[in-house]
Order: sequence, then structure tokens, then C-alpha cells
Amino acid sequence: MSATIHRLDQRPAASLDPMMQLVAPDMNLVNAVILDRMQSEIPLIPELAGHLIAGGGKRMRPMLTLASARLLGYFGNRHHRLAAAVEFIHTATLLHDDVVDGSDLRRGKRTANLIWGNPASILVGDFLFSRSFELMVEDGSLKVLKILSNASAVIAEGEVNQLTAARRVDLGEERYLEIIGAKTAALFAAACRIAAVVAERPDAEEAALDAFGRNLGVAFQLVDDAIDYVSDAGTMGKDSGDDFREGKVTLPVILAYARGNEEDRAFWKAAIEGRRNSDEDFANAVALVRGSRAIDDTIARARHYGQRAIDAVAMFPGGAAKAAMTEAVEFAVSRAY
Amino acid sequence: MSATIHRLDQRPAASLDPMMQLVAPDMNLVNAVILDRMQSEIPLIPELAGHLIAGGGKRMRPMLTLASARLLGYFGNRHHRLAAAVEFIHTATLLHDDVVDGSDLRRGKRTANLIWGNPASILVGDFLFSRSFELMVEDGSLKVLKILSNASAVIAEGEVNQLTAARRVDLGEERYLEIIGAKTAALFAAACRIAAVVAERPDAEEAALDAFGRNLGVAFQLVDDAIDYVSDAGTMGKDSGDDFREGKVTLPVILAYARGNEEDRAFWKAAIEGRRNSDEDFANAVALVRGSRAIDDTIARARHYGQRAIDAVAMFPGGAAKAAMTEAVEFAVSRAY
Repeated sequence: MSATIHRLDQRPAASLDPMMQLVAPDMNLVNAVILDRMQSEIPLIPELAGHLIAGGGKRMRPMLTLASARLLGYFGNRHHRLAAAVEFIHTATLLHDDVVDGSDLRRGKRTANLIWGNPASILVGDFLFSRSFELMVEDGSLKVLKILSNASAVIAEGEVNQLTAARRVDLGEERYLEIIGAKTAALFAAACRIAAVVAERPDAEEAALDAFGRNLGVAFQLVDDAIDYVSDAGTMGKDSGDDFREGKVTLPVILAYARGNEEDRAFWKAAIEGRRNSDEDFANAVALVRGSRAIDDTIARARHYGQRAIDAVAMFPGGAAKAAMTEAVEFAVSRAY
Repeated sequence: MSATIHRLDQRPAASLDPMMQLVAPDMNLVNAVILDRMQSEIPLIPELAGHLIAGGGKRMRPMLTLASARLLGYFGNRHHRLAAAVEFIHTATLLHDDVVDGSDLRRGKRTANLIWGNPASILVGDFLFSRSFELMVEDGSLKVLKILSNASAVIAEGEVNQLTAARRVDLGEERYLEIIGAKTAALFAAACRIAAVVAERPDAEEAALDAFGRNLGVAFQLVDDAIDYVSDAGTMGKDSGDDFREGKVTLPVILAYARGNEEDRAFWKAAIEGRRNSDEDFANAVALVRGSRAIDDTIARARHYGQRAIDAVAMFPGGAAKAAMTEAVEFAVSRAY
């Protein structure tokens, strides 16, 4: 008889598992919609879309739609199609992002643009985006269509905003928050909000779920940006140093730059403008963000938004859904360490 | 007193002018919506979008929505917003097309991707696409949303289909027609069809306007493709030889290839694969398409679809709108000579 080892001395880390288990049966139905509706008579479309869709993403956004519906006690099936629409919007933006950034790796796999080229990634992104609207039209709620068409426009605006801010080391925290609020948090917010629409709940609950998603989205992005400077990270399929080498201006950089001396600022300016991106430069960058407490404070900012997310749903009754959503927030803000 | 010269000896050529005059007051209102709704707090968005939107396009698709509404005696104002949505979809696809094709000229002007780069063109295209759905949601017709979201998905599929068929000289007429049916004719069809929806007309009239737009779209594209091999063309802001030099497989090429001898086919294969694209090669290509009657027969095919477009609206009462739409078809098929 083999021994079972209980690691009682280790406090269990927050995890996405409870949320994944909560929505697992629903997610199977969402996945069925996704697989069915990414089909096309043009073989390249399911081939390319499938590469990304089957590529190990967490399905975070549709999961939020499903968990929010659970929180509201909704047991219909409209949200399966809509969660698939949300994932299609997200997949379309990833395809376009990778072209815009010239990325060659995502979630540890070669990007679609690297394999099939930029034109195919652009056009299949357009297809998935159109398909997402077809799914929403099939559902038939103008309110959902309004929320998601608005979120899509805001995401695109956020991406253009980020593009025009590229390689500007003096971006500032306010504009950075504006950008991630648009390009990341808007879809998190919409994904949660539409659950309240299909469950036909009052405006206050819609707004509460919107706030939950929006704050979680900001927290999530902040921690993502911190992880890039935490050298032992790697559980999220993202290599540390990617943002640094691409000259991305994220909050750790903004804080380290603002708090640095003349020499530090000259280094950051050169790095962000692409003139210093060796391994040694990255080691120096890590030392500067740590020395200036920029990582700790980026995580502190994330905790602030995480707490706001948790409080946004305080009004809802306790239960498995609320516990899972709360733990998802804890997971989002704690995964950097 | 100056003399007025009447050129009575010249049979007046078919023109878009009657259609433009018919819809001019409505088009001013559409343009106001377009200008208003391409705005954003991110200055690059209206700057880039305005370059293309103000760039001398004929506004063919919104014009078709407006003319179709006139044909049906609709005098409301819902179609102004929807015509703007159609133009936004079209503009988004042009922005993405120019990135996909690596084009540097459109309508005789430098392309947006050449001026602002591919990333900006991709993202502003995404913005306009999202904005078009916001406009449709404001109108509130799920039927219109269904027609235009479906058209958008079909366009994207057609673009991917074209991409996978790129530089294949043995494409064949059937697949070529499938591609232009999706990438060009679908939006022409939808632009006309939505007029019947806002005018609340029976399904048969919706279908008739769809058929008018679809056939006109095919005719329009066929003639566009023929013009590329007509050396004295140039009135449409398109230089002859562009398609040839980009290795595009259009109907003139398909027919000339099919009808050619071994030597001709070897030439076309080399040209389409990008190995023969000098001025001398283009002169040879023009001689081959003319010698094989490929241009004449491409135009004959266009006339066939043009006639179907005209017959599709035969059921509607005569008047200024019908006359203008008929003349627009005649213009579309006659402009190559």
C-alpha cells in the first residue's frame, strides 16, 4: 500500500481550479459552439483558428461569463453561445496583436502569423470577429450586441492608443491605465456583464458584474506586466524579459523610470527605444525594478484593483460561484510569486 | 456672349451621375454620420480613417443603399446610419486588403499602410469594423445586423479563399466567381437588401434587391479586372498592369491561360508566379488577352451579370430611382472602353 503524502505545512495557493470546476460542464458546451462555428469551407480558416483556439489558452473570458451566470443562478443556455462569441473576439484580437507586435511565440507555441503569415492571420481574425457578431445576432439581444460592439471598439481604440504610445518611456501611469483599461479590462467587463443581461437582472447587478470584470482585468494585466520582470516565472507560458526586449512600457518600467536617478532614466530610455536589450541589460532592468520596489508596487496596485473586484460582487449571496470568483481574483494577483 | 457647344454627334455614355444626383441630399447626411462616427479621442484614428474615407472613393455601396431606399419609396432616415455602417465595413476591408496585398497606391493616393504602417492600418480597420456594428445596434434591427454580420463573415472567407488561391494560374472560372461573389458582391448585395428591411418590404423585394446588388457587384469586379489589361484606362484611379504585376489571377488571365497554347501557358504560369513582370511582359500579356478575346469575353460575362441585375429589379415601378440604378449598371459594364 503506497503512502499518501499530505503537504500540510504548505498553505494552499489560490487557484483557478474552483472556477474551472464550477463551469466545466458549461465550458464543454461553449467549446462545442467554438469548434462548430470556427468551421468554414475554406480549410485554412479552421486550421489557423484551431491552432490558437486549441493552443492552451485558459478561456478566461468565457469562463467569466459562465461563472457570472452561475453567480446569478442562471441555468439557461443562451450564455454558451455568447461566451463563444466573447472568445472569438478575444481570439481575433490575439491574431491581430501578434501581427502588430511581430510576435513569434504565444503560450509557448509558434504564433499563427509565423506559421501562416500575416495576411492569413489578419483575415482569419476578421472572420472570427464577424462570426462573433453572427453568434450574438443569433442570440438576438440588442443589449448584448451593444455591450460587445462597444467593447470591441474600445479594445481597438486601446490598441491604437498603445501603438501611438509605443516606446515612450515617459508614458506615465495614468495613460498606461487608460490603455490596459481599454485593451484588456473592457472585454473582461463585457464578458461578466452579459451574464446579467441574459439572466435579466437589474441594472445594479449588471454594473456590479461589469465592475468585477473590469477590476479583475486591470489586476490581471498588471500582474502579467510584473511577471515579465520576475525571473523565475514561467507557469503562464510567458518568458520573462519578453516585454523588456520588445520595448514595452508597462507599470514596472514607468515606476522604475520615475523613481530612478539620471543614470537609471538614461538606461530605461535607451532600453525602451530598443538600443539596450541584451541579457545583461535585462538583468540590469530586473535589478532596477526590484531596487525601486516597482514590482512590489505594481503588485500592490493589482491588489487594489483585485480588492475592488471582490467588493464589487459583495452584494451577491455567498456560495460556490462567489467563492470561485473570489479565489480567481486571488489567483490573478498572487501568481507573480 | 460665349458659345455653348453641344456635342450632339457623341452618344452620351452611361454614367453614375443620375444615381449620384438622386441620392445627393441623403448622401450628405450619410457623410455627416461617417465624419461624426469616425472620431475618437485617439487622434490617429480619424487621421488615418479620414485619409481613406475622404480619399475620393465613389461611396458606391452606401449609394446603393440610398438608391434602393428611393426605389422603394422610403423617405425615413434609418438608412443614413446604416449606409454609413456599410461604408465603414468597406473601409475596414480596404485597410486590411492593402496590408494583405502590400499595396502602396489606392485611388491614386499613397495607402494608409504606406504612410502610417501596417499595425495602424490593421487596428484602425478593426475600430471601423466595430464602429459599424455599433451603428447597426443603434438602429436596432436584428435583421439588418444578421445581413451585415453574415456579409462580413462571407467577405473575410472570400479574402482567405483568395489568399489560398494566390498565384495559382489554374484557378478556374468557377472558383474565381466564388471568390469575387464573396469578397465583392456580398457587400453590394447586403447594401441593397437592407434598404428593403428598413422600408419593411416583403421578402421577395428584399431578395430582388439582394440579387440586384450581387449581380452588379460581380459585373463591377469583372470589369475592374478587365480594365487592368486595357492600357488606355485610368479614369478609375487604377493603373493598368497592377493586377498583372501582383500576380493576381483574374478572369482575363484564366481565359487567356485556358485558351492559350503551351508557350502561352508557360508564360502565364511564370508571370503569375512572379517571375515575369516587366513592362515588356505586361505588353505580351495584353497581346495575349486581346488575341484570345479574353477581355471581350470578360466584359461579355459582366454584361450577363449586369443584365441579371437589371432584370432583378424589373418588378419595381419605373421612375428616377430605377432609371438611375439601371444606368449605374450600364456604367459599370461599359467603363472599360
